[in-house]
Amino acid sequence: MTSIQHDIPFAKHLGIEILPASQGEAHLRVKVLEAHTNRFGTAHGGFLNALADTALEVASNSYNVQAVALTTSMQYHKSASIGAVVEVSARETHRGRSTATYHIELTTSGSLLATFTGTVFRKQPAMKMS
Amino acid sequence: MTSIQHDIPFAKHLGIEILPASQGEAHLRVKVLEAHTNRFGTAHGGFLNALADTALEVASNSYNVQAVALTTSMQYHKSASIGAVVEVSARETHRGRSTATYHIELTTSGSLLATFTGTVFRKQPAMKMS
Amino acid sequence: MTSIQHDIPFAKHLGIEILPASQGEAHLRVKVLEAHTNRFGTAHGGFLNALADTALEVASNSYNVQAVALTTSMQYHKSASIGAVVEVSARETHRGRSTATYHIELTTSGSLLATFTGTVFRKQPAMKMS
Amino acid sequence: MTSIQHDIPFAKHLGIEILPASQGEAHLRVKVLEAHTNRFGTAHGGFLNALADTALEVASNSYNVQAVALTTSMQYHKSASIGAVVEVSARETHRGRSTATYHIELTTSGSLLATFTGTVFRKQPAMKMS
Repeated sequence: MTSIQHDIPFAKHLGIEILPASQGEAHLRVKVLEAHTNRFGTAHGGFLNALADTALEVASNSYNVQAVALTTSMQYHKSASIGAVVEVSARETHRGRSTATYHIELTTSGSLLATFTGTVFRKQPAMKMS
Repeated sequence: MTSIQHDIPFAKHLGIEILPASQGEAHLRVKVLEAHTNRFGTAHGGFLNALADTALEVASNSYNVQAVALTTSMQYHKSASIGAVVEVSARETHRGRSTATYHIELTTSGSLLATFTGTVFRKQPAMKMS
Repeated sequence: MTSIQHDIPFAKHLGIEILPASQGEAHLRVKVLEAHTNRFGTAHGGFLNALADTALEVASNSYNVQAVALTTSMQYHKSASIGAVVEVSARETHRGRSTATYHIELTTSGSLLATFTGTVFRKQPAMKMS
Repeated sequence: MTSIQHDIPFAKHLGIEILPASQGEAHLRVKVLEAHTNRFGTAHGGFLNALADTALEVASNSYNVQAVALTTSMQYHKSASIGAVVEVSARETHRGRSTATYHIELTTSGSLLATFTGTVFRKQPAMKMS
């Protein structure tokens, strides 16, 4: 388990709790508030994506290499109501020298809300790539 | 141009301004604040996705049919700094009876930050689909 | 295990072998031939996608409902050489009334080549949706 | 317009005609044959993806740099019948040092069949990245 402190202002702004996780993984938890909802009163798709993207950021930056998102895709299955606690879990599917891919699941009370796949670019300091 | 009032709490929470747009389109604008940033001090990928997803929500709900996101994909090209004004623009690629697809671009000062494609499910009231 | 006969001309054209699988799943196998390669002499991305899309077609049509692909996304991790045997495996992530999502993995000799996620529209005959 | 000869065995196997195009673009054309169809008798999703992926391959390799697909996403709008001529057109959305993104449209008789977005990794020979 890593004990890295994550200083992610947007995650703080959304009330996301970043739990301990092994390298290449991430575990987050958040409670859906009224401020996180769409016009239908359930968790906004962009809010759920922000959870998944934060898990991607945490998991992919758990090595000694700066990683930034290149592409992401998301599938929405169910809606989450105000007060629901959403749990987010990231696992590494592939990690190469320059890119890596993570699969992320969002659940509430054991029910699958959404799935997400993110691919990051890994900036190799020695290579001085911009 | 529609004059629909959009009551989207998450968009308000992020300071997103929803501009007038024709049916099937959306135009948004937001200023990147410190609260919107990732660990590297630039706009969080989840924040940029929330902008795109809000544009998807606005454009796809501009008809007399409730639309909810099924799948989205996003490509990140450049980072946006604190203070940057991000403009978001959605256009309809396809609209069928039950689904529709929108392409969305995010720019700042005319430079392309990211692209996004979203497909929604259109709930037909008469069909009583859940 | 289903014993459904799959009559998919494009799968036949590519030499894809469709193995028995439970409802909501699919298992395929194919040998990479010279005719399946890109300019670099390895399996073409479109060929690998055709395998994944066929697994999506098989898994999603294993119920008494016609399913057609709405959106797919794919992540490429490694290349496959001529002569390699690629195995494709699909599992159902979510199945609702009108849509369903499948995650698919492509491996060769136990090594992950690519991942794929597909969302289908399920045409309900009674609803006469086009 | 480039006069590069494209030697792509899989494209040949599918009968794809690669038309002249400017750098960063691609134009293809193919006739849907019975061998390209799914179980419903229309063009297989994997066949349409193979067209798009070939356009990605052609457009992204029009510079003096080897480009390989990292991630792709596709949205299906309409089906194409046997005998239909499908036209494929790729444009470059973004090109950076190490990655580039292309948007691709598939049409038949001016009607939009599908859209596709692909992101490639650009292998810089001097950097000796594998």
